[in-house]
Amino acid sequence: MGVGIEELKAEWIGGLIEAVGKDKVVTSESVREEFGKDRWHAASMPEAVVHAGCRDDVVATLKFANERGVPVTTRGAGVGYVGGCVPVQGGILLSVGKMDRILEINPSDGVAVVEPGVILNDLQTAVRAQGWYYPPDPASLRECSIGGTIATNAGGPRCVKYGVTRHYILGLEVVLPGGGILETGGRCHKNKTGLDLIGMFVGSEGLLGVVTKATLRLIPHPEARAMLTATFAEFEEAAEAVQTILNTGWQPSGLEITDGFTLKAARDYLGPETLPDGNAHLIVELDGRKDTVLQDLAKLHELVSSLGAIAVDEARDRESCEAIWQLRREFSYSLRATGLIKLNEDIVVPRSRLVDLVKFARQLEKDTGIPVACFGHAGDGNIHTNLMVKDYDTDEAAREKADAALDVLFRWVIENDGKITGEHGVGLAKKRWFKDAVTPVAADVHRRLKAALDPNGILNPGKFIE
Amino acid sequence: MGVGIEELKAEWIGGLIEAVGKDKVVTSESVREEFGKDRWHAASMPEAVVHAGCRDDVVATLKFANERGVPVTTRGAGVGYVGGCVPVQGGILLSVGKMDRILEINPSDGVAVVEPGVILNDLQTAVRAQGWYYPPDPASLRECSIGGTIATNAGGPRCVKYGVTRHYILGLEVVLPGGGILETGGRCHKNKTGLDLIGMFVGSEGLLGVVTKATLRLIPHPEARAMLTATFAEFEEAAEAVQTILNTGWQPSGLEITDGFTLKAARDYLGPETLPDGNAHLIVELDGRKDTVLQDLAKLHELVSSLGAIAVDEARDRESCEAIWQLRREFSYSLRATGLIKLNEDIVVPRSRLVDLVKFARQLEKDTGIPVACFGHAGDGNIHTNLMVKDYDTDEAAREKADAALDVLFRWVIENDGKITGEHGVGLAKKRWFKDAVTPVAADVHRRLKAALDPNGILNPGKFIE
Repeated sequence: MGVGIEELKAEWIGGLIEAVGKDKVVTSESVREEFGKDRWHAASMPEAVVHAGCRDDVVATLKFANERGVPVTTRGAGVGYVGGCVPVQGGILLSVGKMDRILEINPSDGVAVVEPGVILNDLQTAVRAQGWYYPPDPASLRECSIGGTIATNAGGPRCVKYGVTRHYILGLEVVLPGGGILETGGRCHKNKTGLDLIGMFVGSEGLLGVVTKATLRLIPHPEARAMLTATFAEFEEAAEAVQTILNTGWQPSGLEITDGFTLKAARDYLGPETLPDGNAHLIVELDGRKDTVLQDLAKLHELVSSLGAIAVDEARDRESCEAIWQLRREFSYSLRATGLIKLNEDIVVPRSRLVDLVKFARQLEKDTGIPVACFGHAGDGNIHTNLMVKDYDTDEAAREKADAALDVLFRWVIENDGKITGEHGVGLAKKRWFKDAVTPVAADVHRRLKAALDPNGILNPGKFIE
Repeated sequence: MGVGIEELKAEWIGGLIEAVGKDKVVTSESVREEFGKDRWHAASMPEAVVHAGCRDDVVATLKFANERGVPVTTRGAGVGYVGGCVPVQGGILLSVGKMDRILEINPSDGVAVVEPGVILNDLQTAVRAQGWYYPPDPASLRECSIGGTIATNAGGPRCVKYGVTRHYILGLEVVLPGGGILETGGRCHKNKTGLDLIGMFVGSEGLLGVVTKATLRLIPHPEARAMLTATFAEFEEAAEAVQTILNTGWQPSGLEITDGFTLKAARDYLGPETLPDGNAHLIVELDGRKDTVLQDLAKLHELVSSLGAIAVDEARDRESCEAIWQLRREFSYSLRATGLIKLNEDIVVPRSRLVDLVKFARQLEKDTGIPVACFGHAGDGNIHTNLMVKDYDTDEAAREKADAALDVLFRWVIENDGKITGEHGVGLAKKRWFKDAVTPVAADVHRRLKAALDPNGILNPGKFIE
């Protein structure tokens, strides 16, 4: 890096400090390093980190950056899986993590109003205490910020019944690149006033604006939940059970499937007695009224047993249900316990293609020698497909081989009507397949919308719109 | 109209016929008149009607119109309530009503693929026959096209549980003004690949593109439904019951409230014995499993009785449920039977403001002498507020007075955190309040997005973006 460039940086950082205030701007290497990465395998140091404490800080930062053409990458809790908040072109890393107030919880209106840095689980807990429910539940819910879930339109296991984050955003306050403050939507549960500007920003991965406040839709918390688990000899039977459950009018609040590779890792990690025999595992959750959900569960039990399950177990109270979700989480830990690095790809396939996906995964494993573990949200075809790679971060040859295998995976996904990401976002991790995943016309529409809202291209440059 | 203009029109109509084909273009006065209006109180004749039979016809029409700067207004079944498809600047009326094929119903993937002219009820019936469910259910479902419901992001009574049209659109094929074909989304139930282009078009009222194919999300049809109706002495008690039902963890699939004015009209029209005494009426629908939904209903009955209801009635089978929905529809007919013209405004208020809205309506009635009937979707605050006006279409003074009353209503809505439209759209009917309903920044964002996608401004000009 030449002296000239360093001086130039020093020069704009002075201007930034003047614009935002000295106490908000950090340039120490350790902080810049910390804020230059998320949970993915990439890092890039920003020149400065701005800790926004309020909307005005965001306005001042964007105004300044827009005038000077300085890149701005927004960051919530920094726990994304795709490098979405990695500032690949340096510039300003705008952290909204300290804007973490729950401003209002209002059951009478069925809304909560939050700043973007609120941790999802904190909001869910506060809302639950009043008998209400905010459904989006990505696995990272104890660490992720609501701003991050908005940026990625986050999902989770209960999307099969309750839908994704977009369905729960009623209003947004967004700071635009020029510093303009867009207020759109509000606290009404229906709204057809003009274009859907909320949808424009939800899932936009920080490329169009910075969310500084969100009004969330709350729904009544179901009175009770009940679950069952079932193991099947083969994945095909479990996938067929998914189809039968849905075809007979059940609307489960969770419908998760796990393949044989993952189950083997779980038995190795947790002990063979943890799980009954079988190469596939199904989790079904129902929710409803306390008095009747167990009767429904019994009927569902009958149905699933009739479909050739080796073993079916019921969870009839809150603790037993939690134990099943804990087991589901252990599947992830079991994979990690193999000592391999897990490349977790949140691909989606049409629901009828679950079996094809797993067959393909087995073939990929055979062709490349890389183990592939599949498990996830069977109800919506969003199956986390994990390539298990030794020394991905340190061994260049291993990395190249794994990346080539990912190319094969994503090509298969695209050719089979699938989607390259269901809930993590594109970020850096999936950027190289984005151009194949959308048509040239769609790519052009992306560029036009980006240019309309961020004409100087300062927001999160180097990501999926170029 | 001068000869010069007529000649000019004749000139481009020749070009249009050349571009699209003679059999697709109609210029007879009767057809132009028929296609120049919807169900609202405005009409404007296009110079030509194009009956598109396939996507290529739409492409040819838009390419031609974009080059020549001719306005294009798209029309589905023409049963909108706000004049959204009235071609106020003339030009081409592009009817997609004949593109009415259901291309696929696929329970294994949970999707249906349709052309825009399919009548909503036809799709719902076809899907239901296979045990599946497409929830959006505006009152016009027997006449409205799916394209129209996409254009307006249509809702209906079951939105309180199932959400609006946007939640059920997985993929779109859209022809853009230049004739480009945008394919976005697909048949996967989750998708975070890039920006939400689907959200961009759903609810855009024909201002951004023309939908030529849609992939819809289907969900399992609930096995059974059950309902109850309750009458209360006063509206306040019914509104309080709405709050209590939701606050105790019920997730009704319908939650409708009706005010005293409407009930009086219903008793006059249907006979006094039709409805128990009381100035407010509540409808609650539950859905779930056949074996348990009636038990849930009994519990709900207990709850509602404990809230001071004068009379509570149960509907325990499909026929009785249908009779209640029929009664609900009769409320509309009863208002029409007064001989007055019903100005149906689909405003939305925060749910806690239901009582305030009805109090305001009573005051408005007192101040203006115009009867005001309120009923609708209590669960999401989307209350159809009907001003009952004599000779609105024929008596200019009556019209002016009513329009002034509407100004008062919409001012109140905007000042009380409400929204001017929940499901009908802006169209012409609400255009004059749109600028007050959105901030200047939001209006600017609308203009920027419109310019990005329709730079020549040919699509549905004269509506809410100018």
